[in-house]
Amino acid sequence: MHDLQMTMDDGVRAIPIPGLPEIVSGENIGNLISDQCLMNDTPPCVGDLIVVAQKIVSKSENAVVELSTQTPNDEAYRLAQIVGKDPRLVQIVLDQSTRVVRAVQGVLIVETHHGFVCANAGVDHSNIEGDETVTILPVDSDRSAEIIRGAFLRRTGRKVGVVISDTFNRPWREGSINVAIGIAGFDPLQDLRGTEDDFNREMTTSVVSLADEVASMAQLVMGEAGRVPAAIVRGVKWNPGDHSKTRLLRPANQDLFR
Amino acid sequence: MHDLQMTMDDGVRAIPIPGLPEIVSGENIGNLISDQCLMNDTPPCVGDLIVVAQKIVSKSENAVVELSTQTPNDEAYRLAQIVGKDPRLVQIVLDQSTRVVRAVQGVLIVETHHGFVCANAGVDHSNIEGDETVTILPVDSDRSAEIIRGAFLRRTGRKVGVVISDTFNRPWREGSINVAIGIAGFDPLQDLRGTEDDFNREMTTSVVSLADEVASMAQLVMGEAGRVPAAIVRGVKWNPGDHSKTRLLRPANQDLFR
Repeated sequence: MHDLQMTMDDGVRAIPIPGLPEIVSGENIGNLISDQCLMNDTPPCVGDLIVVAQKIVSKSENAVVELSTQTPNDEAYRLAQIVGKDPRLVQIVLDQSTRVVRAVQGVLIVETHHGFVCANAGVDHSNIEGDETVTILPVDSDRSAEIIRGAFLRRTGRKVGVVISDTFNRPWREGSINVAIGIAGFDPLQDLRGTEDDFNREMTTSVVSLADEVASMAQLVMGEAGRVPAAIVRGVKWNPGDHSKTRLLRPANQDLFR
Repeated sequence: MHDLQMTMDDGVRAIPIPGLPEIVSGENIGNLISDQCLMNDTPPCVGDLIVVAQKIVSKSENAVVELSTQTPNDEAYRLAQIVGKDPRLVQIVLDQSTRVVRAVQGVLIVETHHGFVCANAGVDHSNIEGDETVTILPVDSDRSAEIIRGAFLRRTGRKVGVVISDTFNRPWREGSINVAIGIAGFDPLQDLRGTEDDFNREMTTSVVSLADEVASMAQLVMGEAGRVPAAIVRGVKWNPGDHSKTRLLRPANQDLFR
C-alpha cells in the first residue's frame, strides 16, 4: 500500500496517468482514471490531488457542439467580422458568455457564465474528432470534479481532492499556464494570513492559489497534445472541505487590476 | 550519482532545499544553495531546474532600501494619500517603475523597469529584518540567475537551468501564484506550434510558459514564510539556450487583455 503521506521534505510530485482510451460521451471518467492508476502501478494515496484536463471532462459529458447546428445572430456576425472567425463559432462563444471583454483581429476574450475571463470562452477545436466539432467548458465543473472524487473513493478507497484544469493565456505575460476551473474535496486557496514571517511579523497578504499552482504543475506531465489528460499530484498539503471554484474568482468590484 | 534523467513516466518532482542560513549582502547564494543540495543529500542532476526566491537574491545583492533614506516627491505624496501607504514606501515603488497602472485604497499596481506589472513593484516588507527596511527586485534578475547557474556547474559539475521566482497576484483570479522574474540556461517557453494534436491537426496557439509553471510548482515546497527559499524541480523537459526573462513579457501592443 502507498498510504503514507509524503512529508514536506520529500517534496511534491506530479505523476502522469497515461494509457487512458479516447473518451466518448457518457463515459464515467472517474472510474476510468482511478482504474488506470491501479493498472499503471501508480495507485492513488490518501491526500493526492487528481488533476483532470477539461477536454476529457467535456467529452465525457457531451459538452460538444457541432458548428453546423448554429444560426449566428447579428452580434455573432458583427464580432466574427472583427475577430476573423467563423460566425457559428462566435455564436457558440457568445452562448457561453456573459460579456465580451475584448474583440480584435484573431482574439475574442469573454467572461463565461462561470465567471472565467478567457479566450473564446474555452471553446476549443483541438483534440476532438471532426473539423466542425468543438468542445465547450463543462456546465458545472465542480460537480464534474465531485463525481471523479466519488469514483476514486469507491474504486480505490482513497480520499483525494480533484482539480479540473484548463489552459489559459494571461495579460502581460507570454505563454499559457494551466489553471483550475473546477475543484472538489479541498480548499483551493491556502490562506497564510495571520501566520508570522521569519521575523515574527504577521503575513498580511499571502493567500496562495494552491489549486492553480497544482494545475500548472500537472501540465508539466500532461502535455498539450492531450495524450495524457490526467495526473496525480502528491505531497501537497491541503485542507479538506466542500468548496467551489468561485472561491478562485476575484469579485469584479475587488479586482485590483481592472 | 544521480545523473540519470527521469523519463516522462517518472513524472516531475519539486524537492525543497531546506537548511540555508539567513542570507546577508554579498553572499554568493549560488555556492550556498549548491553546497546545501549536496549536504541535504539531494544533489542536483543534469537537467534540473533550480528555483530561487527573489527575496534571498535581493538580500544577497543588497537590493534593500531603508525607508528613512527617502525624500518623497509630490507624486509620491499624492499617491500615498490615495492608496493609504507610507509616502517613503511609495517613493521607492515609483523609483522602480515606468508607469502606474492602478492606484486605489490599499493597492498600487505599477509596471516595473523590467516590464513586470505587479503590486508595489515587488517592493516587500516581509522576511527582512527591521520594520523600516524593504527589499526591491534585483536590478537584472537574469544575471542573478546566470551567476547561480555558474555556481552549480562549478560546485557540482551539473548543467542546470535557473529560475528566480516571485509571488504575483493576478487579474480576475484570487490568490497569488509564483512566476519567473529571471531565468538562465533554458528556454522559458515551450512552443508547441507546428506539432500535431491527437487528430493530426496542427496545434496553432500552444505556447506554454514552462518557467512560470515551474515557479508555481516550486512554491508548493518553498512556502511563503521564507524558510525554504530554494527548490530543485526535476523531470521537466526543457531546451537549453541563452534566453532572457523578456521572453516571458507580452509586448503591450500584442496584449490581448489590455
